[in-house]
This record gives sequence, structure tokens and C-alpha cells, in this order.
Amino acid sequence: MKKNTILTGRVTIPTDTDVVPETIELLNKWGADAIRDCDGTDYPEELKCVQAKVYKTYYTTRKDNEWAKAHPEEVQQCYIMTPFYTATEKNLRIPLLKGIATDLMKVNDYDDKARWWEVIDRSTGLVVTTEDWSYEKETGEVIITNCNLFHNYTVSFLAYLIWDPVHMYNAVTNDWKDVEHQITFDVRQPRTKEYSMGRLRKFIEEHPYVDVIRYTTFFHQFTLIFDEMMREKYVDWYGYSASVSPYILEQFEKEVGYKFRPEFIIDQGYYNNQYRIPSKEFKDFQAFQRREVAKLAKEMVDITHEYGKEAMMFLGDHWIGTEPFMEEFKTIGLDAVVGSVGNGSTLRLISDIPGVKYTEGRFLPYFFPDTFYEGGDPVKEAKVNWVTARRAILRKPIDRIGYGGYLKLAYQFPEFIDYVESVCNEFRELYENIKDTTPYCIKRVAVLNSWGKMRAWGAHMVHHALYQKQNYSYAGVIEALSGTPFEVFFINFDDIRNDRNLLKNIDVLINVGDGDTAHTGGEAWEDAVVSSAIRQFVYEGGGLIGIGEPAGHQYQGHYIQLANVFGIEKETGFTLNYDKYNWDTVSRHFITEDSRADIDFGEGKKNMYALEGTTILVQKEKEVQMAVNEFGKGRSVYISGLPYSFENTRILYRSILWSTHDEEDLNKWFSSNFNVEVHAYVKNNKYCVVNNTYEPQKTRIYRGDSSSFELELDANEIIWYEIS
Amino acid sequence: MKKNTILTGRVTIPTDTDVVPETIELLNKWGADAIRDCDGTDYPEELKCVQAKVYKTYYTTRKDNEWAKAHPEEVQQCYIMTPFYTATEKNLRIPLLKGIATDLMKVNDYDDKARWWEVIDRSTGLVVTTEDWSYEKETGEVIITNCNLFHNYTVSFLAYLIWDPVHMYNAVTNDWKDVEHQITFDVRQPRTKEYSMGRLRKFIEEHPYVDVIRYTTFFHQFTLIFDEMMREKYVDWYGYSASVSPYILEQFEKEVGYKFRPEFIIDQGYYNNQYRIPSKEFKDFQAFQRREVAKLAKEMVDITHEYGKEAMMFLGDHWIGTEPFMEEFKTIGLDAVVGSVGNGSTLRLISDIPGVKYTEGRFLPYFFPDTFYEGGDPVKEAKVNWVTARRAILRKPIDRIGYGGYLKLAYQFPEFIDYVESVCNEFRELYENIKDTTPYCIKRVAVLNSWGKMRAWGAHMVHHALYQKQNYSYAGVIEALSGTPFEVFFINFDDIRNDRNLLKNIDVLINVGDGDTAHTGGEAWEDAVVSSAIRQFVYEGGGLIGIGEPAGHQYQGHYIQLANVFGIEKETGFTLNYDKYNWDTVSRHFITEDSRADIDFGEGKKNMYALEGTTILVQKEKEVQMAVNEFGKGRSVYISGLPYSFENTRILYRSILWSTHDEEDLNKWFSSNFNVEVHAYVKNNKYCVVNNTYEPQKTRIYRGDSSSFELELDANEIIWYEIS
Ligand SMILES: [Mg+2]
Ligand SMILES: [Mg+2]
Ligand SMILES: [Mg+2]
Repeated sequence: MKKNTILTGRVTIPTDTDVVPETIELLNKWGADAIRDCDGTDYPEELKCVQAKVYKTYYTTRKDNEWAKAHPEEVQQCYIMTPFYTATEKNLRIPLLKGIATDLMKVNDYDDKARWWEVIDRSTGLVVTTEDWSYEKETGEVIITNCNLFHNYTVSFLAYLIWDPVHMYNAVTNDWKDVEHQITFDVRQPRTKEYSMGRLRKFIEEHPYVDVIRYTTFFHQFTLIFDEMMREKYVDWYGYSASVSPYILEQFEKEVGYKFRPEFIIDQGYYNNQYRIPSKEFKDFQAFQRREVAKLAKEMVDITHEYGKEAMMFLGDHWIGTEPFMEEFKTIGLDAVVGSVGNGSTLRLISDIPGVKYTEGRFLPYFFPDTFYEGGDPVKEAKVNWVTARRAILRKPIDRIGYGGYLKLAYQFPEFIDYVESVCNEFRELYENIKDTTPYCIKRVAVLNSWGKMRAWGAHMVHHALYQKQNYSYAGVIEALSGTPFEVFFINFDDIRNDRNLLKNIDVLINVGDGDTAHTGGEAWEDAVVSSAIRQFVYEGGGLIGIGEPAGHQYQGHYIQLANVFGIEKETGFTLNYDKYNWDTVSRHFITEDSRADIDFGEGKKNMYALEGTTILVQKEKEVQMAVNEFGKGRSVYISGLPYSFENTRILYRSILWSTHDEEDLNKWFSSNFNVEVHAYVKNNKYCVVNNTYEPQKTRIYRGDSSSFELELDANEIIWYEIS
Repeated sequence: MKKNTILTGRVTIPTDTDVVPETIELLNKWGADAIRDCDGTDYPEELKCVQAKVYKTYYTTRKDNEWAKAHPEEVQQCYIMTPFYTATEKNLRIPLLKGIATDLMKVNDYDDKARWWEVIDRSTGLVVTTEDWSYEKETGEVIITNCNLFHNYTVSFLAYLIWDPVHMYNAVTNDWKDVEHQITFDVRQPRTKEYSMGRLRKFIEEHPYVDVIRYTTFFHQFTLIFDEMMREKYVDWYGYSASVSPYILEQFEKEVGYKFRPEFIIDQGYYNNQYRIPSKEFKDFQAFQRREVAKLAKEMVDITHEYGKEAMMFLGDHWIGTEPFMEEFKTIGLDAVVGSVGNGSTLRLISDIPGVKYTEGRFLPYFFPDTFYEGGDPVKEAKVNWVTARRAILRKPIDRIGYGGYLKLAYQFPEFIDYVESVCNEFRELYENIKDTTPYCIKRVAVLNSWGKMRAWGAHMVHHALYQKQNYSYAGVIEALSGTPFEVFFINFDDIRNDRNLLKNIDVLINVGDGDTAHTGGEAWEDAVVSSAIRQFVYEGGGLIGIGEPAGHQYQGHYIQLANVFGIEKETGFTLNYDKYNWDTVSRHFITEDSRADIDFGEGKKNMYALEGTTILVQKEKEVQMAVNEFGKGRSVYISGLPYSFENTRILYRSILWSTHDEEDLNKWFSSNFNVEVHAYVKNNKYCVVNNTYEPQKTRIYRGDSSSFELELDANEIIWYEIS
């Protein structure tokens, strides 16, 4: 009987007015217990009485153009910088919206430009006095006078977001005709705030059958800009540039006690993206936004609870300011978070969120015509998404899974319907097996960068799980960690400055990324408190793993600031005069014992060389790709890049063990074949073996006591065992 | 008759006591008119009466151990820094000479250590107070007390060069047994100076048959350090670290008016090598050394002249401080400079030297057993050396050529003897044809870096023409320029600061190298005087060519500081959020019209992308390797790397023409086949066509009026024509 109990629930499906019988059929077949209300139509009467929670999406910032149009000064604003313009005469005209979709933005010439705009001489970094520039409304240009000839200038200004960027994206992508542009209003503004609370109450009252208000999300869209051809121009899933207005900036000034400058947000046109080492001012601004957003979001959540509904947050679109891994988040009082699952990292970006009752992952494929067309293969996409995420779920499960889109489309693919049924069952079984326990963790591993827990699991991401040539060789490390038996922490340099003892609680430190980026730390390495803490950590027995250009920052005679710990340095030209004799590679090493000859380092790195005494595992044409070193009682591993693959995950696994002198514990909860992983839940007396590939696999499985057995698994198979 | 006149002379050969008849035979066969005296033996009587000048090598700084041993405190000193040592306890012991050949150096514990040594906390960059360290003579260690735990420390100290590094190199390489180490004394010191002048007089008086005193060179060896295994540890052909002593440093302090610090020379362990952006203090020091070396060298030259002899300087070994392209050099009053010819760049490093009566190039192969052994192919080496250098000679000839080594060895290779005869004749013919004129120059091209004319033709060189994986893609540009019909200047950023009008005299600017090195300029680009001058130069019609990471330095929103001029930028991670749509390449372009599909960019560059509007010529996997852009009336060309080859020389040639809007002048003094070059000497009414390859070539030759003819050339052939 227990079997039956666990075989229902934990699944959300979409519905629509034209698929009522199919909805009921799938509710039963998939064991779903929640339904996402369809947008823009009435919820079907027949579904009001089924045994399922009903979710309904609520947009706090749009779908009310009447209000938006009546209060144009409370439309959401963003900071934006023009490109560089070179002054070839004393006067220079800079068109503010050139290169930007004018449907998207409108210059804010309402607020005091002298106070909120900034013209900067980018050849000197100096701010141009407001005496020397003016805005010409008719042409939309800023005219700068008394220019320094052949200096470059930019204008930083405020613009209203007159079309919600996500709505615009949907309209452009789906080629919607004659759709009214949904204007995005700023709920942080006094009148809109007051109005919004009433609007929310009205919404809840008008939808009594709804159990869960799914907020999309609260107030501020991540940065998303389109160009004149309606193409995406700039996207930052973590961007704060569209969370501003003079109203809140005046509050910010009061709180921090120093004068606001547009440059705090503009950041030379880099908009404080994740690769930038965050300035003090930007960190202050984020902290301010976190507190203010949490405070206001709490008001909405409280209203939701007042009506006896649950409040669920969608981690996307307008999520800026909520920062689920920061302290303020739990004060919002949310019941749940739901987010899209692109891979293992994004799964844990959801499942690791503390302070909510449950988390839910929206799986792919979305039921849209791009996948569900005649001849399409939605099963394949579903398999890849599920299998990729599953290893992360096995470390830290989400509490629910769900699908979105048009059920009607999916219903026409019976194989897909069957596959999802198996996924739902598999998910429920694993959830039951691992709930209320912590999976066996062989090591405590901390990823060290300038962001720490604020970008936990999201490190290196530009737009959610989007591939970038410049990030996959590093993001692969985070993805590998998402499904390996380690307790993973994300710490930043301030954490070490505040309490270097926190390193006592860590077995292995990882620093991964390019030099002089936030991922490796840049000028943080000029702080001897930081560098000596790391050196001490390793010297006293800690493991250190560096990927790319770890601790890479030119300072005091080294580019790699931990050069004598890693035993490697980058040839920047400054050390060409030094002869280098250490090029021999070892033929075998614990770390690479399961690897094929040609390890995939992704983009790899050029110009790395080993110092004397360092053991080189791989070099290509006298450029070191992998090397290990001993420093005191500790050990370090250098890898030039580590794109995600099962083979590279094994390299990382072995690196972590080797760096902590723990080679002997390799054969515990371990699969000899790296395509297969083992997860143990000692408290629940369970362990599972999971085939991450789409082909059958043979392997030898080692239990926690190192006893072992041979095993053959079907493609994708997961097998559960009792420990004793 | 004139023919006969020009067919002798301009050639120097070595001799020895055992090859007197052969010397006379080769003097006649090669038309030589100078003989290098053999070292260590008496000059043969029979050769004293031949019609030839006699050169004799003179060592100012060694070959007098009696003096050196009697005055150990006047032995030449060098500054040296230990590696980084991490303090794991309060006390740290740093062994000064670990990793250094103790035969080479001896710690100078004679002078005031507190004043001349420096212990630096490299984790903070702060100098450790002299209270906190001491030198323990018995162990050769510096003991630092009160260390900051896990900080890194280095010791900068003075050491005596107790074995001349070149003598040591020769002894180790040739495995000389029981050779007495020649100690290198410092002629700048008061007693040694006085002694040296008398020693020189005595030497000249004892060698009355000598016509030319060939100085090797004056006082200071370039930096050359060997390790405990007698292997080369550090080499910098431009290094000043072995030109120091408390005696001269006190003079330096007085002259510049600020306190000397060892760090001025140590430079974090980089010893101010050519890739480093020179500090003000190092530039001051070099200027001081140039003046002082010139003053003292002049005393020796004056003595030489007093005896009616010529003074010739060897550009190598102890040449530090002479800097042939700087103002002070000509004040020395030298008659001649001789140097080793490794390629076109090193040829012009000699032939372009102003202020001497003549220059001489020593060609390869040196008559040593490594080439002249049974089965060896000295002709091949001679051909490569000659043909590689010849195109540079055709732009700016040396006045003489010469060979060194053991004549006896060469004499046993009749083919070689014949080939050198043809080289001598070819050289004399071309010299006669081009002397007293400036070859036709199609453009004025300036290489812009932090060194300017001080490193003219030597830019990117680490140890003379030595290959480095990190320099060949850039040094190739200098090599290409050494033989192309352009007037070439080397300028630095101070030149532009002092007079931006100098750019009016330039057609094309080249900036080549990695970002944040002296070759591209680094922080010089933060100076708006510099950046705006270059922008104006291009805007008003100048050509700009950037190779590698031109103007590469992170500042104010760009890595490539001339991003909007070049139309390219480097993806450092900071602009990953910007969508990039410009990836299409043009199928044909003037610049690449003679190139094969797969252009050799050498090491190339990763992560370069084009801005909107830029024309991409080559991109590989979305990494731009070559692109062109228009900026005002000017044009820019970006290339990721350009190793030396005839094909790449053509790319550079066409880039220079295209960047100056001068495509129409392509077919003037031009060969359609890039393996063949044309040089015109309009004043002398001559032009030549030269096949740079070892195979026959077909080509179409264009005269200055664009009229043309087909031509076939033998391998290596040079053909001379009258213009009209
Ligand atoms: Mg969802
Ligand atoms: Mg010579
Ligand atoms: Mg610029």
C-alpha cells in the first residue's frame, strides 16, 4: 500500500480549456497533484473539483496598461550607457537610443538629468561637468560642448521600459501581430505600490479556486535589451540595471550615506555583470535592493497567506533583488520556489534554496511546437533533460517536478506521455528513498570567487544555462559538482577576510575561471589576508584545485598569485628570460587513471608553465594543461579547463581525493566506470547506482566498506539497493 | 677596371698560426681586406705584410685575474633576487645562492647590506625593515624575523661576478678542463678604471701590427645567469642587472636626486626585461648608464685613436650601456660596430646604427666543429643566413661582411669556400649599386611601443634572434619590415607625449604584441594625450596596424583601448552579455589577395571579436584573426599574429598600402610572386630583383611606372637592372 502512496503526487501539469479530459487522464497517468492554470481564459469548471492544487501565474509588474499609462513616471526604469563616441570637433552629439529598440525604451527626461545622468570622458575616466552638456528632446541626442578632441565619450542615462522585455521577446519570437505592448510598472514606487496591493487582493478574490499564487516574480526584470532589429542586444540573468529609479536611489543614498553615481550601475558599460569583480558600491546597492525587495515582496506574500493561498516564486524574469541564497530571502516568507531546469547546476540553483517549504523544477521540453511537431523527438529531449538533472536531484532533490506549455501538443505523442510517466515514477521513488537525509559526502568542497553564495550554482552563467565559448570550460566544474558526492559551498573573499577559520571546515578549495575576473578574484589577491589564508590552508593539509587561471592577477612578480602553491605560472612575456627545464610528464597518475589519452580541456589555456619540482600530467607543445604540486602537507591540482563530461567529472573527483591525500578512499560508494555514479543515503539505509548514459553500461560497484560487485545497467537505468 | 676595384674588399676573415698559406689564398679568393687576429698566439709574421687591416679583440673586463684578485671589491657586481619563500613560522631562512652556479657568483657582504639589499614581503609589496633581517655568512642565508605567517618573501642582494659569464659559457659548452675562471672586473670603479687605461695602452703598444681594436665590448655584460647544474638559468641580451655597484649607484642617486632602491633593478624579479613597461626609475638608470658608459668608453676610444688605431665595438657580450640608437652613442667616437647576423632584424640592428664610419656583420656559420664536420652542410647554413639577411642589406647595407672561427675547418669544404666567394662578390656588387643612396620607400612606417628607438629592430628579442613560442608571432613583423621598402621608425609613448606632431611625418603606425606588455604599451593607454593622438592620426587619414592585442589594457570599458578604431575587442568575460552578430567574413580583400586559404597567424589570439561595422577577413570558430575597419579618413588592420614568412610579409605589405588608401600604388617596384622582392635605388638609376627562396621562381615584375615584364629567377638569384 505504501508503494501506491508514493506513486502519486509531486508533479505539476499544465492545462487549458480545450484539454479537460486529457488533463484528467494525465493527472491519473502521471500521478500529478497540481495543475497550472491556463493564462487568459477561464479555468475549466470540471477541473475545479479534481484532487489537485491549482497554480496561477501572477504578474506584479505588467498586464495593467491602464495603470501604467496613467502613471508614466512610475514605469520601471533602467540605466543604460551609449556606446563610445569620439569627439572629432569641440561639439559632439550622442544619440541616446541608437542601437536600441525604441519600442522597448523611452528616455526619462522627466527626472533631473543633471543629477541622474552622467557624461563621461572615457579617455580619462572623468565626469564631464553638467555645464558642458544638454539633452535635445527633439533629436533624442545629448550635445556635449568643449570636448577634448579625439577623446571618447559616453552618456549614462535613465530610460523607461515601455514594453516588458519578456513580453516583447515572446511577441517578437512568436510573431504576434497587433499585440498591445505590456508596459512594465515599478511596484517600488509609492502610488504603484499602493495600487499593486489592491490589485493583488482583487486578483486573488477573483480566482477563488486557485491554491498557489505563482509570482513572476516580483518587481525587477533581469537586464534584457533588444536592438533596432528587435534582436537581443544584451542579456544578463543576474543584471540589476533595470531595478532603478530616482525614487529608490534617493533611499539608497540615505541608507549608505554617500552620493549615488550612475557609474555604480553603469560600470563602464559592463553593468556589473557576473564576470566583473563587484565594487563596494555595487555590493551596497545589491544589499539595499535585497532588503527592500524582500520587504515589499513579504507584503504580497502576507496578503497571499491572508487569503489562505500559497505563495510561489518563479526564479526567472523579474527575480532581481530576491537572491535566494542570501539572508534576506527567507524573510519574504515564500512557500515555494519554482524554476526551469537546464542542467544539474540549474537544478541545484533551485533545490539548494533554503527557507522555503518546497521547491519545484520545470523540466524540458516545454510543450511548444518547436519540439512537438510531426517528426519531432520530444522523448529524446526529455531524456537528456531528466538524466542530466537526475544526478543533481540525487544530491539534493527538488520536492516537485513539473511541465509547462500546451498539454494538447504533448498528448499527441504517446511515447512521450509514457516516458514522462516513468520519469514521474522514478522521481517519486528516489524522493521517497532519499528524503529527510543527507547523502553521503566524501569531502567538503568550497568554490572560492568574488561572489560566493550569492552566485551559488550559478557561477559563470550569463543567461541561465546558456553555452558560451568562454564559459563552458569553467562552468563544467560547477556542473560536475552538482551531481558528485561532495558537500559544496560557495564562498567569497570577504568570507575569508571576516573569518579565515571557515577554511578549517573545508577539505578542498576550488578557484576556477580566467584571471582578473570575479571568478578567480583579481585584486583580491593583493590582500595578504586572503593570500596567506589560502597558503596556510594548503600548507596545513588542504586541497587546492585551480582551473583556467586560478589566482590570476599580475602583482608583485607573479601572474598566478598562488604560483608556489600550484607550482605553475603563466608566461605573459615577463618571464621569457627564465629558462624552463621542467617539461617531462608523468606516464601515470592517480588523477588521470580512468582518463583516455586525449583529455578534453575545452578551450584550455596557453602559456602556462610548471615551476621546478612540479609534476606535470599533461602539456601540449610546452603549454601545461594539467599539473600537481605539494605544498607543506597539502596538495594542489592545476587544470587548464574542464568542460562537463562524465570523464571530466571523474578527473575532478579524483583530483579532490588526491588533493586531500585520500586516494585510499577511492573505492567507497564508487563505480569503476565513470559513466555510472553511486549515491548513498546511509541514514535511510539505501544506495543507488545510476547510469548517466543512453547506452547500457558494465561496471564494478564498490560499497561503503569497499566490498564490490559487477553490475550491468540498462541505458539511463537507476537501481536502488538496501545498504545491509 | 672599375669592375675589378669593386670586386675586392669589404670582407674580414679569421686566421691562425697554422693556416698562413690558406689565409693568403682566401684573402685573394674572397677579396678580403681585413684579418681577425687569432687569440692567444702570436700573429704570423707572413701576414703582417699582406694588404689587409688587422683586427684584434680586446677584453676590457677580463683576462687579467691578477688585477681582479688583488681588487676583489672592484669585481663587477650584479643585482639578483631569490625566488619566493613562504614564511611558515615567525623566522624564515632564505639561502641566497640556491639555484645559482656558485662558480659564477659570490655574495657581496662587503658593502652595507642595510643600504644595498632589500627584503620584500611580496604578499604586500612592502619592504621589511632592516631590524628584522640579517645575513648569516657561514650558511649564506638571510634570516628574517617577525615574519607575517604565510606571506611570501624575497631577498634582493648584490653579488660579485667571479667568473665572466661568457667565459663560463664557453668553458662549460666546450668542456674545457682546468681552465682558470676569468674574473670580470668593473672598469667603472676608480682604481680599475685607472689601471684599465694603462692596460689598454700597454696592449696597443704590444700589438703594433694591429689596425683595429675590436672591443668586447666595454664594461657590462648583459644579464646571463647559470644554475647549479651549469645550465643557463636567466638570459636577457638587454639586461642591465649586471651593470651595478654601490660606487656607481651613489653617483646615480646624486644625479637623479632621489634615493636608490634595489627594486629599481630587481623589478619584482623581472629585471626590467624588454616585455616590462619601463618604470621612470629604470629609464633614469638607463640614461645614467648610457652617459657614464659613453664617457668612459670615449676615453678608451681616444687612447685607441691616439695610437693611430681604429676602435670597433662588438655589439654583444659586454655591450650594456652603449645603446647604439640613443644620442650618447655617437659621442663615444667609435669608428665601427660589428655584430652577429642572425636574420634581417639583427642585420639592421647593426646596419642602422648612426654615428659610426662603418658597420660590419659577422655571418654564419661560425667556423666551428658543430657545422664543419665530415658530412656537415655548411653551404646550406651559409645560404640561409645570407639570403635571410640579404633583403635587409638591400634596404640598409652594412659596410662589410666577415666570418669568424677556425679558418682551417672551413678550408676543408671547397664548396663552402666557393659559395662564400660568390657571397662576397654579390655583396660587393650590391654595395656598389646602392651606396650613397636611400632605397625607394613607399611608406613611412613607425612601430610604436614603450621602448621606441632604444629597442629599434630588437623589439621582442629575448636573447638576440632566439625563437620563443611567445615572440615569433610578433617578432615576425619586425623581421618582415627589415627587408621591405618602407622607411621604418621606432617610437615610444613619450615621443608622442613630447610632440604629437611627429605623427604627421608617419603614414602607418604599428602596435604589435600582447596586451599589458611594453610592446603594446599597457597603462600608456590611460593617458588621453596618447590615445587621442593616435585616434586623431587615424581619423585624419593615417593607417593603423595592430597585431596580437594592440592597445590592450583594461581601462574604462575596453580592453582594446583603440576598440572603436580597430573595430575589434577582446572578450575577457566582461562583454559576454553583449550579443555579437558580426561574424561574416568577406570572400576577397585587397590585403589577402595573394594569400593562400589558410593564413599562418602563428600562435594567433583567442577571444577577439569584431564590433558592428567592422569587416572580418578571417575568423576561426568565432575568434577573429584578421579584420579591417575605417575610422574617419583612416583605416585600421587587425591581425592576430604574423610569424615571418614571405607570404606574411606580403600580407603586411598589402596591409600598409590598404591602410593608407594606396591600393593603386601596389604595382610599383613590385613582384607578383611574393617569394621575390624588388628594390629600387632611383638616385643610382638601379633596381634589383631578388629571389628569397632556394628554388627557381617565376614572377611578373612591375617597374616604378607600373610597366612590367615576366621574369624567371634561379634559386636565390639577384638580378640588377638600370632603371632607364
Ligand atoms: Mg514553471
Ligand atoms: Mg665578429
Ligand atoms: Mg576606445
